[in-house]
Amino acid sequence: MSIRVGIVGISGFGGGEAMRLIASHPFFELVYAAGDGSAGSRLGDRFPGVPAKLTELVIEQWDPMTLPRLDLLFASLPTGTSAEALARVPGAVKIVDVGGDHRYVEGWAYGLADVWPSQIEGHTRVANPGCFPAATLTALAPLLASKLIEPGNIVVDAKTGISGAGRGGADSRFGYAESNENLLPYGLLKHVHMPEMAKTIGRLNGGSAAGLVFTPHLVPMTRGVLATIYCRGRATTGQCLDAARHFYAGRAFVRVTEKPPQTKWATGSNLAFVSYAADPERNLVIAMGVVDNLGKGAAGQAVQNANLMCGLPETTGLDGLPVWP
Amino acid sequence: MSIRVGIVGISGFGGGEAMRLIASHPFFELVYAAGDGSAGSRLGDRFPGVPAKLTELVIEQWDPMTLPRLDLLFASLPTGTSAEALARVPGAVKIVDVGGDHRYVEGWAYGLADVWPSQIEGHTRVANPGCFPAATLTALAPLLASKLIEPGNIVVDAKTGISGAGRGGADSRFGYAESNENLLPYGLLKHVHMPEMAKTIGRLNGGSAAGLVFTPHLVPMTRGVLATIYCRGRATTGQCLDAARHFYAGRAFVRVTEKPPQTKWATGSNLAFVSYAADPERNLVIAMGVVDNLGKGAAGQAVQNANLMCGLPETTGLDGLPVWP
Amino acid sequence: MSIRVGIVGISGFGGGEAMRLIASHPFFELVYAAGDGSAGSRLGDRFPGVPAKLTELVIEQWDPMTLPRLDLLFASLPTGTSAEALARVPGAVKIVDVGGDHRYVEGWAYGLADVWPSQIEGHTRVANPGCFPAATLTALAPLLASKLIEPGNIVVDAKTGISGAGRGGADSRFGYAESNENLLPYGLLKHVHMPEMAKTIGRLNGGSAAGLVFTPHLVPMTRGVLATIYCRGRATTGQCLDAARHFYAGRAFVRVTEKPPQTKWATGSNLAFVSYAADPERNLVIAMGVVDNLGKGAAGQAVQNANLMCGLPETTGLDGLPVWP
Amino acid sequence: MSIRVGIVGISGFGGGEAMRLIASHPFFELVYAAGDGSAGSRLGDRFPGVPAKLTELVIEQWDPMTLPRLDLLFASLPTGTSAEALARVPGAVKIVDVGGDHRYVEGWAYGLADVWPSQIEGHTRVANPGCFPAATLTALAPLLASKLIEPGNIVVDAKTGISGAGRGGADSRFGYAESNENLLPYGLLKHVHMPEMAKTIGRLNGGSAAGLVFTPHLVPMTRGVLATIYCRGRATTGQCLDAARHFYAGRAFVRVTEKPPQTKWATGSNLAFVSYAADPERNLVIAMGVVDNLGKGAAGQAVQNANLMCGLPETTGLDGLPVWP
Repeated sequence: MSIRVGIVGISGFGGGEAMRLIASHPFFELVYAAGDGSAGSRLGDRFPGVPAKLTELVIEQWDPMTLPRLDLLFASLPTGTSAEALARVPGAVKIVDVGGDHRYVEGWAYGLADVWPSQIEGHTRVANPGCFPAATLTALAPLLASKLIEPGNIVVDAKTGISGAGRGGADSRFGYAESNENLLPYGLLKHVHMPEMAKTIGRLNGGSAAGLVFTPHLVPMTRGVLATIYCRGRATTGQCLDAARHFYAGRAFVRVTEKPPQTKWATGSNLAFVSYAADPERNLVIAMGVVDNLGKGAAGQAVQNANLMCGLPETTGLDGLPVWP
Repeated sequence: MSIRVGIVGISGFGGGEAMRLIASHPFFELVYAAGDGSAGSRLGDRFPGVPAKLTELVIEQWDPMTLPRLDLLFASLPTGTSAEALARVPGAVKIVDVGGDHRYVEGWAYGLADVWPSQIEGHTRVANPGCFPAATLTALAPLLASKLIEPGNIVVDAKTGISGAGRGGADSRFGYAESNENLLPYGLLKHVHMPEMAKTIGRLNGGSAAGLVFTPHLVPMTRGVLATIYCRGRATTGQCLDAARHFYAGRAFVRVTEKPPQTKWATGSNLAFVSYAADPERNLVIAMGVVDNLGKGAAGQAVQNANLMCGLPETTGLDGLPVWP
Repeated sequence: MSIRVGIVGISGFGGGEAMRLIASHPFFELVYAAGDGSAGSRLGDRFPGVPAKLTELVIEQWDPMTLPRLDLLFASLPTGTSAEALARVPGAVKIVDVGGDHRYVEGWAYGLADVWPSQIEGHTRVANPGCFPAATLTALAPLLASKLIEPGNIVVDAKTGISGAGRGGADSRFGYAESNENLLPYGLLKHVHMPEMAKTIGRLNGGSAAGLVFTPHLVPMTRGVLATIYCRGRATTGQCLDAARHFYAGRAFVRVTEKPPQTKWATGSNLAFVSYAADPERNLVIAMGVVDNLGKGAAGQAVQNANLMCGLPETTGLDGLPVWP
Repeated sequence: MSIRVGIVGISGFGGGEAMRLIASHPFFELVYAAGDGSAGSRLGDRFPGVPAKLTELVIEQWDPMTLPRLDLLFASLPTGTSAEALARVPGAVKIVDVGGDHRYVEGWAYGLADVWPSQIEGHTRVANPGCFPAATLTALAPLLASKLIEPGNIVVDAKTGISGAGRGGADSRFGYAESNENLLPYGLLKHVHMPEMAKTIGRLNGGSAAGLVFTPHLVPMTRGVLATIYCRGRATTGQCLDAARHFYAGRAFVRVTEKPPQTKWATGSNLAFVSYAADPERNLVIAMGVVDNLGKGAAGQAVQNANLMCGLPETTGLDGLPVWP
């Protein structure tokens, strides 16, 4: 079986990571790639490490009216451009939107694959969660579902490697010398990931995510997301760990650990690591979630979703271990 | 005037940074250095960049009974060893303990120099704050003093470069390949810096710091501390900024900024940067504080305290700008 | 078919990388792991990202007299310890020594798999090249074989990420704060990799590698090796590129590029990139070779050699693309 | 005494570093700053760490016809723009051109201050050496002057941190995610620094620098330059070290070390470290030179030159120790 796959947004880091995973997927065959800044060049010129079978693939200018025959499309486009770009893709083509434009939009399933795989299986339109939500919601889901924590007044302090900020291009905020050896908070009080997190918290728990606080930080490393989440609840550490082990029993990609998770445990993989530290006397539960922002935070989860959409085992093509050190 | 200075703990990063600052201080003259792992070697062998006047200084084995004549001593010793090591230092020798053993111990002033300089002036025994408290308390002090925030239920999410974890030596947790490109939380629910932060919060505000939460994280960079602090309060961002500008008016080392602070703004200096983002409707004030963990988090603050103790302008020898990029 | 595989030296970075590749190899089954510092612990405790099938594997203390039934063994031991440790392994067990002790020892094939695959096919004892030789010899082989350069007076200026220096442990030379943002040369005039490079140069060319100079440098990154090699020869750039394309035609892992190679093109893979820049008027050919020191510089090449030894296609289990960015 | 100083090119890393040094210089007073991208903004907005005395300085658009009264000007402009920009500066204003346009141009002294200070003293037009030449020539000068090495066929393999490549802006080659954890050679066979190195070699030795080879590399760190230089000569290591100690006797900024130099020994300072490893039997001398590319590779050396031009001790304002770790 060969599933004909396209990627639009191949020049971005998410598109490139999708390409890496698809290239060694046993059933996905990359037959189409489109990107803004690189249209006209060979894939082998953009990515010197692609196998021979892909080096001659020419990167196209995106035009939904002139697509080749595709079964599946990954879209990794700048925020705000995805809705229009994908609107005219034939309905028979399955789409995973790695960007944010279709999250919680009618007709699109929210692709939190380790939590709601049944909602994704067989679907044709899936919106991939953002990288921060992937880390945060994976850690919180068990506690919310079993009501070990309150859904309100959750404080998420999140940290990301700089590839999570996109292919900066002319933005010298991400120039190497400016960004190296530097840590900073950004997007205070108003980050774009908050609505999807609030909605998902509500879906998982039934209650309201009122008072949700989210503060992202840029960290001087390429990949990795860690969310340190402060919640109200009278659970013990053991109860939280047990709830998570139970919730994710049989799920291939979520690891529950007693030690606090490190971002490098996930690098290069589709794994998520979650852990908890609670102090019932203080009505405090600290939840921690780690993903690779390009893995389960983007392309890894996208391929997992695509596997579910195509009726394949969700681990197909995703069994690579994290790259460590 | 020449003030005869010694450093014990010269092998640690804090001791080395103190040496750097003292070497270009107009009045401090380094005449004595002691360190465990390096006793017997020349300072010039340990630190290839020291000026000619210091290359031949031999590093001694610490022995308080055989000290040369000193006016001032900086102690940068491993936690738990400082009390005994310093107990027999002659009372005429001024001591700044950069380590934690004498914080809030009777007879020792707590060296938060930008907040309580008058308590340090002329004192002979000063306990330098820890690096996390330096960043956290500098940001919180104006809000606590003017009661713009509640002293209770403060959540401190702190991030530090790896030199803040000490000269690891045999601890392969800080081996380069393990630590590079990696971020992790540690010391959850029980970090050693909590008592001094809780006490200082109480001193600044009068109220109780009950419910204080503190979570440190190791960040893959050499220097820098950022504390992102979630507080309860109905102040506006403008009120917080004004309170801070007023509180620190005339203080040379604290900068109040509208933009979120970046750790690299402080690197190599004794500066602290603070900022605020508030949402009164949600009873939320986010305070942010940045220092160089070896600067205002250790040696920089120690030299500032020493200046005050010696009756010098507090900026003496500390006017170097941050090293950027 | 299942080939029963063991790894001795699982605690080192090379052993860990071998484990990563074996875990997703279609035919290799890891049934035995031994390591010094970690004997007694579960593999899942040492490597949080291993799949469920491997988490319970207990790491043994190495004892060649009590091995389980193995078909294949990867040895990644400290220099000088391998000969004795492997001497009593049953002859029927195929061994790839990733360390240096058996290079150019009688009875062991030198595992430069992209150059002499036929010498490795079906062999039972293979000595993996060192990481610097892997990068250097892969770049030089075409020029030496077609005599485009002289074999003598070659100057190799090599650069490696710090995981190439081994799991430093107590060696604070590789402590994060000391090593970060730092570059230095080491092992001048006498590096242990020189004999195998000199011998291989002689084998490839027939002439003598007299006057070989090799200078390694430590670079502040985790993975990656680049060798910049200055040779004498009157070839043009085009002739060198053509010779390399011809020499490596059909070889899956060596990429010949016109642009100078970047170490990150190879990271996480078994690829090698080579390029050339020549100035015939000056009798100068600059050859450049890049590998991931843990990939083709160690475990990747070891798995490739093992594939050849076992009669498998050499690319089996090695088709993962480089992890970029 | 107050010397009125201006900087044109304040937005570049070299201009910013010059500003840092001038701000704590006892006699230099920054009264004028001009920069392309930042004209109209306050210095305190561009550089959050500047002292109060400088925060309100407005960055001007460069116009040599409307300069305030200046005694000294540092120019740190993009290559190729300096000659025209500086042509109409009044002759009474001393100029140090940190960029490359005036090196070895008639009427301009070549500012290799540790080698030819007398040629700079009292001069009004000084061209600062490039960062690679600073490291390379400082290491080679003693050997060339005492003819311990041949001036011909010198091979320079140089490595630089990324701030040495300028403030990349729109050049995504220096985007963080692309550049981090990556090493690459560039500018092979034709780098712009070669003419000044060849000329200087000739001046130091009398012979010809024919056959000079120079290969720079980008290293994933912010600051630091190391040149590893392969020369022909029958000297011993001891002879080279002695020649260098003698050549630089009394020079404040050059340190001769037996151990190979590390770039971080110089970071944040105007120091240069040189060392040697020779093998007389093979007619090989390896010279090594380290500087901070923004220190002695640019602004540090510029301030040292300015001190000489103004008749001040050359160490004025340059006694800060390297910032380590």
